[in-house]
Amino acid sequence: MKGQKRIRDYCVIIGELKPGEKNAITDVKGVKVGHVTLNNGSVKTGVTAILPHEGNIFKDKVIASSHVINGFGKTIGTIQIEELGTIETPIILTNTLSVGLATDALIEYMLKENEDIGFTTGTVNPVVCECNDGYLNDIRGRYVKKEHVFEAIQNADVEFEEGAVGAGAGMSCYGLKGGIGSSSRQIELDNRTYTVGILVLSNFGRKEDLTINGIRIGKMISEKNKVKCNESDKGSIIVILATDIPMTSRQLKRISRRAVIGLNRTGSYMGNGSGEIVIGFTTSNRISHYEKEATTNIKMFNENKIDVVFRAVAEATEEAILNSLICADTTEGRDGHIRYSLKEYIGLIL
Amino acid sequence: MKGQKRIRDYCVIIGELKPGEKNAITDVKGVKVGHVTLNNGSVKTGVTAILPHEGNIFKDKVIASSHVINGFGKTIGTIQIEELGTIETPIILTNTLSVGLATDALIEYMLKENEDIGFTTGTVNPVVCECNDGYLNDIRGRYVKKEHVFEAIQNADVEFEEGAVGAGAGMSCYGLKGGIGSSSRQIELDNRTYTVGILVLSNFGRKEDLTINGIRIGKMISEKNKVKCNESDKGSIIVILATDIPMTSRQLKRISRRAVIGLNRTGSYMGNGSGEIVIGFTTSNRISHYEKEATTNIKMFNENKIDVVFRAVAEATEEAILNSLICADTTEGRDGHIRYSLKEYIGLIL
Amino acid sequence: MKGQKRIRDYCVIIGELKPGEKNAITDVKGVKVGHVTLNNGSVKTGVTAILPHEGNIFKDKVIASSHVINGFGKTIGTIQIEELGTIETPIILTNTLSVGLATDALIEYMLKENEDIGFTTGTVNPVVCECNDGYLNDIRGRYVKKEHVFEAIQNADVEFEEGAVGAGAGMSCYGLKGGIGSSSRQIELDNRTYTVGILVLSNFGRKEDLTINGIRIGKMISEKNKVKCNESDKGSIIVILATDIPMTSRQLKRISRRAVIGLNRTGSYMGNGSGEIVIGFTTSNRISHYEKEATTNIKMFNENKIDVVFRAVAEATEEAILNSLICADTTEGRDGHIRYSLKEYIGLIL
Amino acid sequence: MKGQKRIRDYCVIIGELKPGEKNAITDVKGVKVGHVTLNNGSVKTGVTAILPHEGNIFKDKVIASSHVINGFGKTIGTIQIEELGTIETPIILTNTLSVGLATDALIEYMLKENEDIGFTTGTVNPVVCECNDGYLNDIRGRYVKKEHVFEAIQNADVEFEEGAVGAGAGMSCYGLKGGIGSSSRQIELDNRTYTVGILVLSNFGRKEDLTINGIRIGKMISEKNKVKCNESDKGSIIVILATDIPMTSRQLKRISRRAVIGLNRTGSYMGNGSGEIVIGFTTSNRISHYEKEATTNIKMFNENKIDVVFRAVAEATEEAILNSLICADTTEGRDGHIRYSLKEYIGLIL
Repeated sequence: MKGQKRIRDYCVIIGELKPGEKNAITDVKGVKVGHVTLNNGSVKTGVTAILPHEGNIFKDKVIASSHVINGFGKTIGTIQIEELGTIETPIILTNTLSVGLATDALIEYMLKENEDIGFTTGTVNPVVCECNDGYLNDIRGRYVKKEHVFEAIQNADVEFEEGAVGAGAGMSCYGLKGGIGSSSRQIELDNRTYTVGILVLSNFGRKEDLTINGIRIGKMISEKNKVKCNESDKGSIIVILATDIPMTSRQLKRISRRAVIGLNRTGSYMGNGSGEIVIGFTTSNRISHYEKEATTNIKMFNENKIDVVFRAVAEATEEAILNSLICADTTEGRDGHIRYSLKEYIGLIL
Repeated sequence: MKGQKRIRDYCVIIGELKPGEKNAITDVKGVKVGHVTLNNGSVKTGVTAILPHEGNIFKDKVIASSHVINGFGKTIGTIQIEELGTIETPIILTNTLSVGLATDALIEYMLKENEDIGFTTGTVNPVVCECNDGYLNDIRGRYVKKEHVFEAIQNADVEFEEGAVGAGAGMSCYGLKGGIGSSSRQIELDNRTYTVGILVLSNFGRKEDLTINGIRIGKMISEKNKVKCNESDKGSIIVILATDIPMTSRQLKRISRRAVIGLNRTGSYMGNGSGEIVIGFTTSNRISHYEKEATTNIKMFNENKIDVVFRAVAEATEEAILNSLICADTTEGRDGHIRYSLKEYIGLIL
Repeated sequence: MKGQKRIRDYCVIIGELKPGEKNAITDVKGVKVGHVTLNNGSVKTGVTAILPHEGNIFKDKVIASSHVINGFGKTIGTIQIEELGTIETPIILTNTLSVGLATDALIEYMLKENEDIGFTTGTVNPVVCECNDGYLNDIRGRYVKKEHVFEAIQNADVEFEEGAVGAGAGMSCYGLKGGIGSSSRQIELDNRTYTVGILVLSNFGRKEDLTINGIRIGKMISEKNKVKCNESDKGSIIVILATDIPMTSRQLKRISRRAVIGLNRTGSYMGNGSGEIVIGFTTSNRISHYEKEATTNIKMFNENKIDVVFRAVAEATEEAILNSLICADTTEGRDGHIRYSLKEYIGLIL
Repeated sequence: MKGQKRIRDYCVIIGELKPGEKNAITDVKGVKVGHVTLNNGSVKTGVTAILPHEGNIFKDKVIASSHVINGFGKTIGTIQIEELGTIETPIILTNTLSVGLATDALIEYMLKENEDIGFTTGTVNPVVCECNDGYLNDIRGRYVKKEHVFEAIQNADVEFEEGAVGAGAGMSCYGLKGGIGSSSRQIELDNRTYTVGILVLSNFGRKEDLTINGIRIGKMISEKNKVKCNESDKGSIIVILATDIPMTSRQLKRISRRAVIGLNRTGSYMGNGSGEIVIGFTTSNRISHYEKEATTNIKMFNENKIDVVFRAVAEATEEAILNSLICADTTEGRDGHIRYSLKEYIGLIL
């Protein structure tokens, strides 16, 4: 989006389902994404905010689920998502050592927006995810400030940049420059069009393993550069899954578990030192904070028809990861560390 | 029921909520329970069947959940309950070494009732739970036969016996005779009466720990008998939770987790060698096997109001355990092993 | 400790196992506890730090587990505990709306102590637990500052106060004043003495439900005060379990699940709006951050003998909750809200 | 093995690690595999037994874990594996509607081998896994008998057949003939060679999705046959993971989670109607049933070095699936249903 050349613009077509209009998570109506990028010498970090809908998220919660692929990660808020099956705040992405600060900022934001929290009603469950951008970013410097979190939320829009932006500013993926990527898929069911949207923060993988549509481009890159890869599959990936398909949290968890397919298709071995987390939500089936009725009507998806949704999640995740790579520019960060852009090598397979 | 003197008939009142009409799991409309009891010398075992509703359970599944309190147990069918959130067969209880046979019988029963299974549609997920009745029963003899399973299903009724019957024939609880017990609670919400019903197969606990409404009767029994208790808290408990409150499987799991409160109030320490499993289902929110629509309407419970349901589960579980004890007659089984009835000691606290 | 009159000093003896010397979590050798208490008008909050051992916890991790009893809570750090089975920081307790700030402070503390984190090695997993002290405390004011976290760690000692101190300053339990409580149990195995220690941050329960050794004192209090209790079982409890018994994280999780027994024996129904989390660790079986060998020797516990450990956890949790109540003084907080001390009512059952 | 031409014999090399001597699960010393195949008209089914070691498995248990990829399955025994982290019986694979019978047979076998079970000690936890072979097999006929289970255990050997044998006789994979496949990988650590072995029972996937080393052969097959594929990704896969690397059950679970990588690399979308289960065990770290000591020494793996094990699991699973396809002959089963062998199409990519 925003004029960036994405993987599909290189005629790399992932899967068989049709993307939504923007081919982004914001194809799910109401979802918005905002970035703040900190890019200054060895400061290569930032914040990305995902808003599940345009209203008051605390008062009007979305049904949600979380799924841990590999738990070497510090994502905050999943205990309550698991128990109650809801999300009640924007979702914030940032670097690992800034999760505390970002959580504090998100709480402050929620208190400002909701005078009842902690006063006449209970507290709030902030959802903050992270990857470790320490290869390019002076992560010990902890340059993310509360204002950056507020600003990222403020910046949220249906159009947003991908690559080395927001929380993705300093991330590495397959030994190349990673970061933010997105994609979507449309599904026709009972004469209605539903959308599955994915946003990833990519920060994992060993260069030699990178695979695009079955082609081991990573191996080609290593051979071209005559560099024997010694790195392990470190890092992490955060996958945010949004849909307008009506689902329960159990069903959301089931489809979230298919993100790993897209991940694996790009070549990942889901390394030890990796926080790989999927946060999923549906914009249907809102839960009102001050609900008075003992029972409410929700719509549930017919799982006899869920296979196409699994496929949509897998395809959109795979494409979102590739977008996070191809949209990211070559970046030099702390101590002369450089991550090259996939753009420099994509010609190898075209 | 069926003229048995239950714990409430001894003026022991558990909790503060009102029981349903029969004070049994069958107060949840549609639920039925059937037993086959094998009682002959060292054969002290049997089968109990719980039918979630009166129709074809495979075609018209109930939303369900399972919860493992302590997993030293061999309950069958929980993987699919967790994944799909449904139960599609009667629930069968029997002894540990008969779970294979009972599963085989339940599959055979389901095939007879449904010509499509394994032919024009998929297979079926049998749900079979167990406790080890080996103290009283010659469990190695494996006297349960397929016919007993069919018969238990056939016998299912809203009126059923408690104590040393069905799967409970040979069970021990707190060093006394345990077995089948049941109880229920009513909840008023939005001018409607909902019911939570519990059935337990009790087979756990150390005599000294038995506690009734806060009174450590187990200690009194041991002192009276001048027997120092050396046993550990072995054995198991199966808790079947039925309700007509509309819930998702996540919500059912949440209320199922409160069964442990009732368990603990009777004195249990949830011993190592114990298979303690809760299977919960709601008779609302059916899932049709041949559903055609992509989405269906279900009712969800408002969790702001769930505390009273937690209390209902806790109270009914506590009372069901006590009913399993007080309804059971003193039983002599294999090798002269005897378990006395709580009836012999209840006078200590009246 | 520190001269406070504890529940055992009122001749209320919980269970049958023998407590350790201090009857506190710090009976587990190496464990220390520190508080910072903020007590000024409507500011009733604070921080409590638990140090698993006296060395560098990041370099020399403890084997650990987490267990969620009810997940309406915001505890931070459990995803990685589950994946890796270790804790690598002090454990911080504070109020719900300060978890972000406390996490940020704990990260800062760890960076100061470890120059390698985020530079030559990976990041760090902060463990921060919380309860909502908003009834007595102006929780929206967020008075906890980073310095309080550093200071609580600094204050850590084997002797520590209980009741309305540290993170417990503003907590409520069974409609009375709650907060910090601790207890321990000793276990003799193979001619060695092992210890299980518990520390709780108590903030849950409905007054009428409070039960001490089977006696429903909560009901007596309500009747004495002629106040009909309308409150629900809100709030939370954090349970920190320490032991020197060598265990794997799976085994720690098993014993952690028995904390609920102690909780239930005091009268809890584990209410909906409750974050009830157990964090367990063993001081045996350290994991070195820079381990070079492919395999290391650890000791595992023989689960044939685990029942007594279950009992120890249950008893110590029950007694720790009662200590959190009996050690806490009557406290008036924001908007004239008052929580009375259990001391005012304990005479009812003596 | 046994003279069958396997995928590697077609010069298809999966991954970068070196296989063990037999390139099979039986490269893990002590592990044996036995089949009974029922192949007669519309009877296309059988039993496969995996023996974790050559001794008495009940007396000398192996540390184990289970991992559910997709839980639309009826595998038996996982509750206790999760709780205790051990396996104490041979692992039996068969068809879905025979799990009850096979469980009953396995219990009978264990009782014969161990006179103490259910008499002087507790019961036994049978582990039985299944896939639905109903496309080729008259699964409703339930032709598997107890004797077949005993015989499969009896037949267990280090050499065993792959393809349409044992439990694999009637299975379908990617619209082709599937069944039993195996592979292994060697890992050098601290001058010792460790082995990871995989055995799969493959019964999943849509023809168009089959992918071999990045090449979408499934699409080629469909195009060649001018058949538009309408099938969904049904069926299941059972993955048995054996290793001699010393691990805890948590660690085994971590490596088991990487089986999905191999699965996805072959083209799977992990469909709804699929029971995808991984059972893992290590032959190191035995747990004695009659252990007397309170603590025992075990070896734990250093997770800093676990990435290569993840890779080994992924590679061996991928190759095992391909072996299950390439070793299976074209099979005609019930109602004229035919599954062709991959052998007929492998030329498309050579």
